Amino acid sequence: MVQKIEIIGVSGIPLIRPGDNLGEIIIEAVNRMGLTIEDHDIVLVTQIIVSKAEGRVYSLSEFIPSQDALNIAATTGKDPRHVEAILREAVRIVRMRGEVIITETRHGFICANSGVDLSNVGEGMVALLPIDPDKSAEIIRKEIEALTGKHVAVIITDSHGRPFRRGAINVAVGCSGIEPIWDRRGEKDLYGRILRSKQICIADELASAAELVMGQADEGVPVAIIRGYRYKASEDGARRIIRPADEDLFR
Amino acid sequence: MVQKIEIIGVSGIPLIRPGDNLGEIIIEAVNRMGLTIEDHDIVLVTQIIVSKAEGRVYSLSEFIPSQDALNIAATTGKDPRHVEAILREAVRIVRMRGEVIITETRHGFICANSGVDLSNVGEGMVALLPIDPDKSAEIIRKEIEALTGKHVAVIITDSHGRPFRRGAINVAVGCSGIEPIWDRRGEKDLYGRILRSKQICIADELASAAELVMGQADEGVPVAIIRGYRYKASEDGARRIIRPADEDLFR
Repeated sequence: MVQKIEIIGVSGIPLIRPGDNLGEIIIEAVNRMGLTIEDHDIVLVTQIIVSKAEGRVYSLSEFIPSQDALNIAATTGKDPRHVEAILREAVRIVRMRGEVIITETRHGFICANSGVDLSNVGEGMVALLPIDPDKSAEIIRKEIEALTGKHVAVIITDSHGRPFRRGAINVAVGCSGIEPIWDRRGEKDLYGRILRSKQICIADELASAAELVMGQADEGVPVAIIRGYRYKASEDGARRIIRPADEDLFR
Repeated sequence: MVQKIEIIGVSGIPLIRPGDNLGEIIIEAVNRMGLTIEDHDIVLVTQIIVSKAEGRVYSLSEFIPSQDALNIAATTGKDPRHVEAILREAVRIVRMRGEVIITETRHGFICANSGVDLSNVGEGMVALLPIDPDKSAEIIRKEIEALTGKHVAVIITDSHGRPFRRGAINVAVGCSGIEPIWDRRGEKDLYGRILRSKQICIADELASAAELVMGQADEGVPVAIIRGYRYKASEDGARRIIRPADEDLFR
């Protein structure tokens, strides 16, 4: 039997407004494409439309820069109001050089600009990450399951740069209904040797796979479905992926 | 039209020996599955079988530990011969704690154990990374293209841990025939705003997608085909992905 996984881009998602029911909008778009949700589908949703639905898009003018924000804006060349939003979303600055600001967000993510984005929100606006992306994923999952009667997993994705390697990749910032990390320690290799350190972040690998269809369309494709991957159901969220500071060699 | 990408696991690859022609073996396995290679398929090959074909698997006994290796073995609890192999493949140690050794390899990758692996090679053996994984990818690509008459891309993958996030993910350590990084700077977002910093490492995203079929089989699935992704052909290799030290905030 051929093992095959499909990554399907969900097109026709309208521009999202505060209060929109994303689960319902996703199912409507899937159905308009002539498709239906199947059991064990993984629904991947880009963070920006979650932020929009949750009212996390603000006018830059709402962020009155502090003296810290003014100083950092001067050295980085960023809009001081953008810097103010970045600082409010951060628990600390991890690195800063040139125009780059790497922070640790309130969630524990280490990423550029606290995940605060000026793209795809319109001039003078700014999008903050969802307050609790695992909860966001759960709400979307439960809505989809209620509408379709199918068991699914939901992953909220965002694009993160990383040390050592050029280019950003899509990762999971929230998830629901799926074990984000596959712990293979204790399994045996092809020769019977016990694997000692094999833990795979499948939630991030699924997020990266989804961007292959999300990124390429002329119009935005903010949602993808991955079909055929046998994941393990779990109540764990993407917060499980965050490496605690005391286990991290690079902070 | 539904945008769909397929990830196909290539099963039935025999255990690989030094000197084996991987391109030919892959095509034979694909054909045995009743499939054929199509134009613009991306063929992803896990590093371990490339190392085996290139004779990069050695007996641990060939690595006589230096005093440095003995010292590091004592603090990390690793086999001193394994440490010796790690040190020979490294240009420097980046971090070390507990049993973890993060090095910079001769290629420039920053990863655990210089990518030197004790898994899937048999007791008392050790696999080193290919000497030039971009060249390895090119050789496999040209063989596949000669046998099939189709244009393809080839990516050699390996599993890397990373800072900040738990779990390893599959990344590209070599590639041929594909632009590894998609530079979207200068494009416009949904609202006409110019993207300033958007570079996406699609080679790594493809590698992560491939592991979704490589990782799950009971037997090993060391090769995957990704079909339906419109990549840009390029002579660049995965060495383009390595972030130079002077651009890196985390060394």
